[in-house]
Amino acid sequence: MVRPYELIKAKRDGRTLPPDAIRDFVAGYTRGAIPDYQMAAMCMAIFFRGLGAVELGAWARAMLQSGEVLDLSDVPGVKVDKHSTGGVGDKVSLSLAPLAAACGVPVPMISGRGLGHTGGTLDKLESIPGFRVDLSVEEYRRMVREVGACLIGQTATLVPADKKLYALRDVTATVESIPLIASSIMSKKLAEGIDALVLDVKVGSGAFMKQLEDAWRLARTMIEIGDQMDCRVTALITDMDQPLGRTVGNALEVTEAIAVLRGTAPADLTEVTFALTAEMLILGRQAANEQDARGKLARAVQDGTALAKLREIVSWQGGDPRVVDDPALLPHARATADVLSGAEGYVTAIDAEAIGLAAMGLGAGRESVESPIDPAVGIVLLRKVGERIAAQEPLAQIHYNRTERVEDAKARILHAFRIGPAAPEPRPLVLERLR
Amino acid sequence: MVRPYELIKAKRDGRTLPPDAIRDFVAGYTRGAIPDYQMAAMCMAIFFRGLGAVELGAWARAMLQSGEVLDLSDVPGVKVDKHSTGGVGDKVSLSLAPLAAACGVPVPMISGRGLGHTGGTLDKLESIPGFRVDLSVEEYRRMVREVGACLIGQTATLVPADKKLYALRDVTATVESIPLIASSIMSKKLAEGIDALVLDVKVGSGAFMKQLEDAWRLARTMIEIGDQMDCRVTALITDMDQPLGRTVGNALEVTEAIAVLRGTAPADLTEVTFALTAEMLILGRQAANEQDARGKLARAVQDGTALAKLREIVSWQGGDPRVVDDPALLPHARATADVLSGAEGYVTAIDAEAIGLAAMGLGAGRESVESPIDPAVGIVLLRKVGERIAAQEPLAQIHYNRTERVEDAKARILHAFRIGPAAPEPRPLVLERLR
Repeated sequence: MVRPYELIKAKRDGRTLPPDAIRDFVAGYTRGAIPDYQMAAMCMAIFFRGLGAVELGAWARAMLQSGEVLDLSDVPGVKVDKHSTGGVGDKVSLSLAPLAAACGVPVPMISGRGLGHTGGTLDKLESIPGFRVDLSVEEYRRMVREVGACLIGQTATLVPADKKLYALRDVTATVESIPLIASSIMSKKLAEGIDALVLDVKVGSGAFMKQLEDAWRLARTMIEIGDQMDCRVTALITDMDQPLGRTVGNALEVTEAIAVLRGTAPADLTEVTFALTAEMLILGRQAANEQDARGKLARAVQDGTALAKLREIVSWQGGDPRVVDDPALLPHARATADVLSGAEGYVTAIDAEAIGLAAMGLGAGRESVESPIDPAVGIVLLRKVGERIAAQEPLAQIHYNRTERVEDAKARILHAFRIGPAAPEPRPLVLERLR
Repeated sequence: MVRPYELIKAKRDGRTLPPDAIRDFVAGYTRGAIPDYQMAAMCMAIFFRGLGAVELGAWARAMLQSGEVLDLSDVPGVKVDKHSTGGVGDKVSLSLAPLAAACGVPVPMISGRGLGHTGGTLDKLESIPGFRVDLSVEEYRRMVREVGACLIGQTATLVPADKKLYALRDVTATVESIPLIASSIMSKKLAEGIDALVLDVKVGSGAFMKQLEDAWRLARTMIEIGDQMDCRVTALITDMDQPLGRTVGNALEVTEAIAVLRGTAPADLTEVTFALTAEMLILGRQAANEQDARGKLARAVQDGTALAKLREIVSWQGGDPRVVDDPALLPHARATADVLSGAEGYVTAIDAEAIGLAAMGLGAGRESVESPIDPAVGIVLLRKVGERIAAQEPLAQIHYNRTERVEDAKARILHAFRIGPAAPEPRPLVLERLR
């Protein structure tokens, strides 16, 4: 076995690490034989030096092999999941999973919770009364096989190396390393038992990646790891310069996601959802190309099969399926308050991160991992970029339960909106497609 | 207080750290409030990003202030020490300290032990029967005041941050960082209570710095720290492409150092010793310039005052002063063996590191910190670079106590020598002077 010191030094000096040595290093760290300080030095060296394609594959594989890998080989078909790097108002998973499943693609989906200004799929799902995200592995496998989709949370047995490593990176300023981000995501996704993955890399003011160049590098890195691990990856780089859709907050977002399956959702949310789900249908061999896929998705909405699939998922996971037809059964806030525009003109920008922080301040998100979530509160954006607003007209509506939080949220929302004399050029929603 | 995470991130991203934040970070690490993994990440970030002049001063000062700082203000005169980055056959301190003291410069000298292929001043001194390097701080102060020089080892109370940090750097591949090396050296030297420092940066095959460029950067960095901390620093960059002098091994090196004070030592050792000591006389205001300094050094050798000063030092530190006049009283090995040249010609190179490792293999040095030292064993180089050798003539003589170690040492020594048809151009011993 290569000594940990030698391996850190090799990476520090820009040399390529042998796959076996990477495997031993990650495994040694996971079982505690290699201390935190050596891994911290290694992560910082990787931050500066990166990882080559073969190193990336070895690192992700070592992470994957640190724990259980779910076996879905008894589920027929190409199992495809979607991963998003996270954004504000990103409720795509909630409609994408039933849509893809309705079109014949099995979707094993393990999601996370929200932290900071971005929400989490699990928190949104849990705003449906009774919905359970902590199914057993057996229930999960059975649902993927019989329903075609299952949406659960991380289990302790999957990729324990990632839990330990992420906690360390979080306190050693080594989170923002694309090879470490990509191998963390890929190891967790591969542990689900998938065959292929659609990646939604968000770029813009509300995203982790502020620059297109970084988003592109992350996408490429994920595809490289996929190549090393026999997992086909298609990546879309999508816009997150303003929140996606018009709602931010858990129950509000569930309502909007259901609207996608009814064909009544805002155009941007519908477009991003369809673009990503179309890629799943192609990877899952249920569509020959994008046009074919979009046709199938449109039909699944029109004939109600997508909505029926969501009802089925909610019901199997212990939730009240009536919310699918009557979103008023979801938790709702005691009061609302309008945020009035001071100026007249066109909305030229909405700072997505600021809107996310405003929603967090209302109780929709977590400041720390222990913070409780209020499923009912949130923000409805009454105007989006390019739309006209008159002075004293409402830009947004705040749904709140605690009066003392309202003023701060109002100030943040007002500050997030930019009003100008003319509408800006529309930006494309899907900036790039890589595979 | 700036959060440790923010500070690591700032350095990672190439920003300049505020002095107060550096002070808190180093102090927090020393007392255990900041864990090893955060310091490891910081050291790796510093490896890549470096430290600016003000940061360097703050880092070295924080290290210095982690422990006791010896106060020699009651000793009249400008206190000057010398620090060498370490080389093979480097016994300069042993003659430099009595020479400088004999010329009126107080020399408070705290030295280290050898590790790997380089020897340590303390190990060499301890080959003198009875010599103690563990004097109390009171004995040390008294000797500097009354004798003019004292040579002891590190105490636990001086720069505890450095002990902790060095142990961490040693296992996280962050030793080879010039700002961290320089601040480590300077904090330890300043804790001695010095006013000025002469730095001997060795460069070449037997040195830590293999390239002149690195040696130059280290020298400049030390001078920058000195500027920030009111300590005048003069640096000489000296050649370590072959061992210094003709002996490697503790008692053998003491004998050669004594020869410097008698005027009978090899020219290279004498020249490097005089060049460094001359700088001490200038910094210590006992000479106006180099010519003046060299004149005073020559007189101290000729009139025996330097030799008398060494007798005085040995005697005060519990050693047998008769060794100064009769080096045969030093430990000597049971047997010697010649290493014969296979070829005829001129010595064109001697790999100093290989000679150092050969001596270590004989027992003269330490493989790990716990290894015992054999003071008697070592190597005498009978030929140095530029000298003629006939086939089957001895290149070197091995002094050994354990027969089973001899063959390996012979092979290493033979391998270290390069023989060619012509003598190479002589290299200067002092490559550069910086201040």
